[in-house]
Amino acid sequence: MRPQIVLFGDSITEQSFLPGGWGAALANSYSRKADVIIRGYGGYNTRWALFLLHHIFPLDSTKPPAATTIFLGANDAALLGRSSESQHVPIEEYKENLRKIVRHLKERSPSMLIVLITPPPICEEGRDAYARSLYGDNASELSERTNKVTGEYAKACIETAEELGVRFINLWSKMQETDGWQKKFLSDGLHLTPEGNEVVYQEVTRVFKEAWLSAEEMPYDFPHYLQIDGKNPESAFQQKNL
Amino acid sequence: MRPQIVLFGDSITEQSFLPGGWGAALANSYSRKADVIIRGYGGYNTRWALFLLHHIFPLDSTKPPAATTIFLGANDAALLGRSSESQHVPIEEYKENLRKIVRHLKERSPSMLIVLITPPPICEEGRDAYARSLYGDNASELSERTNKVTGEYAKACIETAEELGVRFINLWSKMQETDGWQKKFLSDGLHLTPEGNEVVYQEVTRVFKEAWLSAEEMPYDFPHYLQIDGKNPESAFQQKNL
Repeated sequence: MRPQIVLFGDSITEQSFLPGGWGAALANSYSRKADVIIRGYGGYNTRWALFLLHHIFPLDSTKPPAATTIFLGANDAALLGRSSESQHVPIEEYKENLRKIVRHLKERSPSMLIVLITPPPICEEGRDAYARSLYGDNASELSERTNKVTGEYAKACIETAEELGVRFINLWSKMQETDGWQKKFLSDGLHLTPEGNEVVYQEVTRVFKEAWLSAEEMPYDFPHYLQIDGKNPESAFQQKNL
Repeated sequence: MRPQIVLFGDSITEQSFLPGGWGAALANSYSRKADVIIRGYGGYNTRWALFLLHHIFPLDSTKPPAATTIFLGANDAALLGRSSESQHVPIEEYKENLRKIVRHLKERSPSMLIVLITPPPICEEGRDAYARSLYGDNASELSERTNKVTGEYAKACIETAEELGVRFINLWSKMQETDGWQKKFLSDGLHLTPEGNEVVYQEVTRVFKEAWLSAEEMPYDFPHYLQIDGKNPESAFQQKNL
């Protein structure tokens, strides 16, 4: 009955219901209007996400989501020859995988609102500190991700969105507009602080609004309680054919 | 594919995805295991909730929720002759309405885990201060809810749960075990602070665990990324028949 908004992505989506998370904030905004469903898979790159695509978005189900965010690339951008290299996906394959995901969703529902989100920027110093907190002196001295390379994946994400005519959020650039983004928005050089989550929430809300999926303009699913006459409650429900 | 946990109730359920909310915490715990769906209706009592029952839980849908929390009564317990009297429902009708809700859910799915949650306690001083913050000198001097009467509804809720053989959470008593519960758990004498939300989250988690719906023991929907071999990703997915 209610439209669904699916958040498809990696750990930054999986963790979006932690306190201050962008997914929970979105679920709260769309309360009584749409269901926000998380499909976040920590550590996944686009290559592995393809294995899930037909299970998460089956072609034969009767009710496709009204909107889907695709927030992948932070793991694809892990560097070859460094500690996270098993997650690395070459940039051309990253673009092709994003195309496959978008095409599948469009086949699923031509009217679905699809929003590609670029990976956030990387704070190499934060990543290195995080590695030392885990592995001490055994931590690699070479960062496993760099902001420059992740920026190339962000650019590739936007090019793909433009090529396919779907909306996008350039989170990589947006966050770097704020002084001190490295610590303000990132908790370990990659994952988001509550302030970083707020940026994602604001950006997703803005793009949804531009695409006419604005929570403010969507109807409540059932009457507001102040519209219900205590002596004649039936009336408010009958007016809505309930 | 994934089991659903539905939170059905009034404003305390509707607001459960605000920062620190018990619904968001539950959604985070069951991440990659179950979807937590909010069906909270601010201001609603059990009489009005009955109008929604067949729409929220249709008998003919193929996939009933694995679990449902029913968290109603705070509005039923509003006092006659006071400012919120239009929400009042007599205690015997409250019990009968809860029976109707539980019976409908059992008809929907005999194996559904059903948990009745009593209303939280009331801090009359907090309610009065809230009324003054809204209406100043025009605020009624008589509290629209009292802790004593809400306690009778809590007792009625538990009696109904025991009669029907479903699980329950005595939130009214549980919160009052802690010194300073009035301000620690309640923001306006009725709605929950983040600490109050934490109590609900812990209690729901405990009861779900007792009923074998423990997030820790449920399988991940797809392989953990550390189980995926970068050189042969197919293998991890084939093992799960994906």
